[in-house]
Amino acid sequence: MTRQTLPPTLRFLIAARQAELHSLESLAHTCELVTLISHLVHELQKERGYTNLFLCHPTPERQHILDAQHQSVSTHEADVRTFLDALLTHPIGSDHGRARLFDSIAHALYRLDGLPILRCNILAHRLQPGDASAAFTRLISSLLAVAVETTDAAHDADITRLLAALLNFMQGKELCGQERAYGVLGYTAGRFNPTQKVHMVMLAERQTRCFMQFEALADRQSLQAWQSLDDLHEPVLSLRGMAARTSAEQPVDTGMAALWFDLCTARIDGMHPIECQLTTTLAQRCRQRIEAVSLDLRNHRALLDSMAAHEGSTRPTMLFDVQSRPLDVAPADGIASGMERSILDLLQAQAERIQASDQALDQARTALDERRHIEKAKWILVELHRISEADAHAQLQHEAMRSGRTLTEVAHALLATRNATQG
Amino acid sequence: MTRQTLPPTLRFLIAARQAELHSLESLAHTCELVTLISHLVHELQKERGYTNLFLCHPTPERQHILDAQHQSVSTHEADVRTFLDALLTHPIGSDHGRARLFDSIAHALYRLDGLPILRCNILAHRLQPGDASAAFTRLISSLLAVAVETTDAAHDADITRLLAALLNFMQGKELCGQERAYGVLGYTAGRFNPTQKVHMVMLAERQTRCFMQFEALADRQSLQAWQSLDDLHEPVLSLRGMAARTSAEQPVDTGMAALWFDLCTARIDGMHPIECQLTTTLAQRCRQRIEAVSLDLRNHRALLDSMAAHEGSTRPTMLFDVQSRPLDVAPADGIASGMERSILDLLQAQAERIQASDQALDQARTALDERRHIEKAKWILVELHRISEADAHAQLQHEAMRSGRTLTEVAHALLATRNATQG
Repeated sequence: MTRQTLPPTLRFLIAARQAELHSLESLAHTCELVTLISHLVHELQKERGYTNLFLCHPTPERQHILDAQHQSVSTHEADVRTFLDALLTHPIGSDHGRARLFDSIAHALYRLDGLPILRCNILAHRLQPGDASAAFTRLISSLLAVAVETTDAAHDADITRLLAALLNFMQGKELCGQERAYGVLGYTAGRFNPTQKVHMVMLAERQTRCFMQFEALADRQSLQAWQSLDDLHEPVLSLRGMAARTSAEQPVDTGMAALWFDLCTARIDGMHPIECQLTTTLAQRCRQRIEAVSLDLRNHRALLDSMAAHEGSTRPTMLFDVQSRPLDVAPADGIASGMERSILDLLQAQAERIQASDQALDQARTALDERRHIEKAKWILVELHRISEADAHAQLQHEAMRSGRTLTEVAHALLATRNATQG
Repeated sequence: MTRQTLPPTLRFLIAARQAELHSLESLAHTCELVTLISHLVHELQKERGYTNLFLCHPTPERQHILDAQHQSVSTHEADVRTFLDALLTHPIGSDHGRARLFDSIAHALYRLDGLPILRCNILAHRLQPGDASAAFTRLISSLLAVAVETTDAAHDADITRLLAALLNFMQGKELCGQERAYGVLGYTAGRFNPTQKVHMVMLAERQTRCFMQFEALADRQSLQAWQSLDDLHEPVLSLRGMAARTSAEQPVDTGMAALWFDLCTARIDGMHPIECQLTTTLAQRCRQRIEAVSLDLRNHRALLDSMAAHEGSTRPTMLFDVQSRPLDVAPADGIASGMERSILDLLQAQAERIQASDQALDQARTALDERRHIEKAKWILVELHRISEADAHAQLQHEAMRSGRTLTEVAHALLATRNATQG
C-alpha cells in the first residue's frame, strides 16, 4: 500500500513527523553556519589583536605577522561567504525569522566588504589603535548578531541548550578579545585613567556573566575542558588587578603591554578548542537526533501503512468514538475496535510527545530569549540616545545595580515601557 | 543590471524583504483556513442544536431539518477537506509550527471521520442528548484547536490582532452554542440541578471573557456590528436568570426549552455575520499588506539596482566606514561618500522597521499567547487527572478565584511548576 492511499488522518500524522524532521535538518544547517562564524570570528579577533600591537608599535616583524593573519581571515571569510551564497537559494527557518536573519547577514556583509579599506588605512597608519579596534569590534559584533538570529529556528530542547551555551561562550570570548585590545591601550600608556578602569571592570563582569550561562548550559566534555583553563585565567586576573591600581603617580612599565597581550592571547587561544569542542558536540547531537527521528518516521509510516491495509473495508468510520468521555481516553464500552484504539493511542501519544518537548524547549529557550531581550533593550538605548553598544550595555548594567535587579529584569522593564508608550 | 549581479549585501537586503512577503502570503493562506473552519464550525453548531432538539423530542419535522443540516455541514466539510489536502503538498508556516498544526489537523480529521457513524447512532436513538452534544463539542473543539495552531505563523502585528479577535469570537460563540445545548437539557427537565447551575454560570463567564478579548482587539466595523446585537443578548440574559432560580420545588414549564433554544439560536445566528465581517476584514487586510509589501519590494529592488549600477568600479570597498562611531550612525568626517551613506541609511532604516514591527507584534501576540498558555495548562490537568476539558477549565478558574489571580497567571504558575518538576 503506497502512502498516497492512506486516509488523510494518517497522512497528517506522518506529515507532522516529517515536519519535525525538516525542522531538525534546518537546525543542523543553522549550526553549521554558527560554526563557520565562530572560526571566522576567532581569526578576526586575532587580527584585531595583531593590528593593535602593530599600530601601538609598528615593526617589520609585526607587519609580517599581520599579513599572514590576513590570509587566515580570508580563508574563513570565503567559507562563510560560500555558505551565505547558498543560503539565498536554499533558505532555512521560517519566513519571518529569515527576514531578521537576512537583515543581520546584510549588515555583516556590509562590514566584511569594508575589511580591505580598513586594512589599507591601518597599514598606512591613518587610524588610531582605538579606532581600528572599534572597527573590528563592530565587524565581529555584526557576525555574532547573525549567529544569534539563527536561533529563531531552534526548536529542539537539547540542541537549543547547546546552541545557547556556544553563543554565550562566543560572546564571552569576544569580550576577552575586547579586554585584550583595551588593556593594551592602557598598558602602552603605562596607566589606566578612571574611565578606562570602569570600562575594564565592565568587560570583566560581562565575561563572567557569559561564562556562567555557558557553564549552566554546556555539555560535560566542554565543561571539563573549560575547567582545565584555570591556569590561563589566573595571570590575567592578576594583571587586571594591576591595571586597576595604576595612576598618573604610579605608572607601570610600558613593556607590560606585551605581557598583557601575550597572557590574554594564551587565554583566548585556550578557549578556541572549547569553542570547537562545542561545535563538534553540536553537529554530533544534530546528526544523532536526525537519525533517531528518521528511524522513528520510517517505523511510524510502516505502522500506519499496516494499519490502513488491515482496516480495509471499514473505512471511513473506523476512526471514531461516539461515547461521551474526557477527550481522548479510550472508551470502556467496547464500541472501539482494537484498530480504533490504536489510532486513539497514536493521536494521544503524539500529543503528549509534543507537549513534553514543548515544555523542555520552553526551558531551553529561556536562556536564548533572555539574551535576545537584552540585545533588544540595548538597541533601543542606542537608537534613543545615539550611543555605542558598549555604553548602552553599561547603562543597563548601571540601572540593574542601582535598582537591585538583574540585567534581564531591567531589559524587560525597558521593553515593556517602550511597548506601553507605543501602544 | 540584473539581480544576480548585485553585491551580496544588497541581495540579502532584498531577500529579507522577500521573506517578509512570503511570510505575509503564508499568513493570508492561514487566514483562509481559519475562515473555512469558522463556516464549518457554525454549521456543526447548528447540527448540534437540531440534534439536541431531535433527541429530546423527535418529530418527523425535526428529522427533516436535521437531514437538511447534514447537507449544509457536508458542503463546508468538503471545502475544509479540499483545503487540507492541498496543505499536504503546499505546506504553510515554519517546520516546527507545522508539526503541531498537522497533529491538530490529524485529530480534527479523526473526529470528522466519525461524523457518519455518530449521525447513524443519533437517528437510531442509540445516544442520550448529552452524549451526542458532547461528541459534537469534541469535534468542534478539535477544529478550533486547528485554528489556534495556525497562529504560529502570525508575524504581522495588525493581522495578528485581527486573527486573535476572530479566534476569541469563535471561541465565545462556541460557548454560546454549548450553553444553548446545555440549557435545553435543564429546561426540558423543567429545572437545573446545582451542578448544572454552576456549569451554566461558568459557560456564561467564559463567554464574557472571550468577548471582552474580542472587543479589545477587533476592528471598528465588527465592533459596531457586535454592539447592535444587544437586543438579542437581553432575552438570553433573562432566561439565564430564570434557569438559576429553578428548583425541584419550583420547576418551569418544559415548553421553555424551545423558547430558550430559539432565543439562543437567534443570538448565535446574529453572531455569524460578525464572524463573516471579521474574516472579510482579515482577508482584506492581508491583501492590502501583501500589495504594500510587494510594491515596497519592487521599489526597494529598483533603488538597489540603481545604487549598484551607479557605484560601478568602486566596489567592493564602497560599503564601509572606518571611523570609530556608535554603531550605524553616519560618519561626520566626510569619508563616507553619498553612496555609502545611502547603504548605511538603508541598513539602519530596515533595522528600525523590523524593531518597530517586532514591538508591535509582541503586543499583538500577547492575546494569542495567553490563550495558548491557558490551553496548555488545561491540557496538563486533563492529562494529569483524566478529566474533561470543561472540568479542567473550571479547576483553573476556581484556583484563580480562590487566589485572586487572573486565569493567565494561574496557567503560567501551573506551567512553571510543571517545567520545574520536569527539569
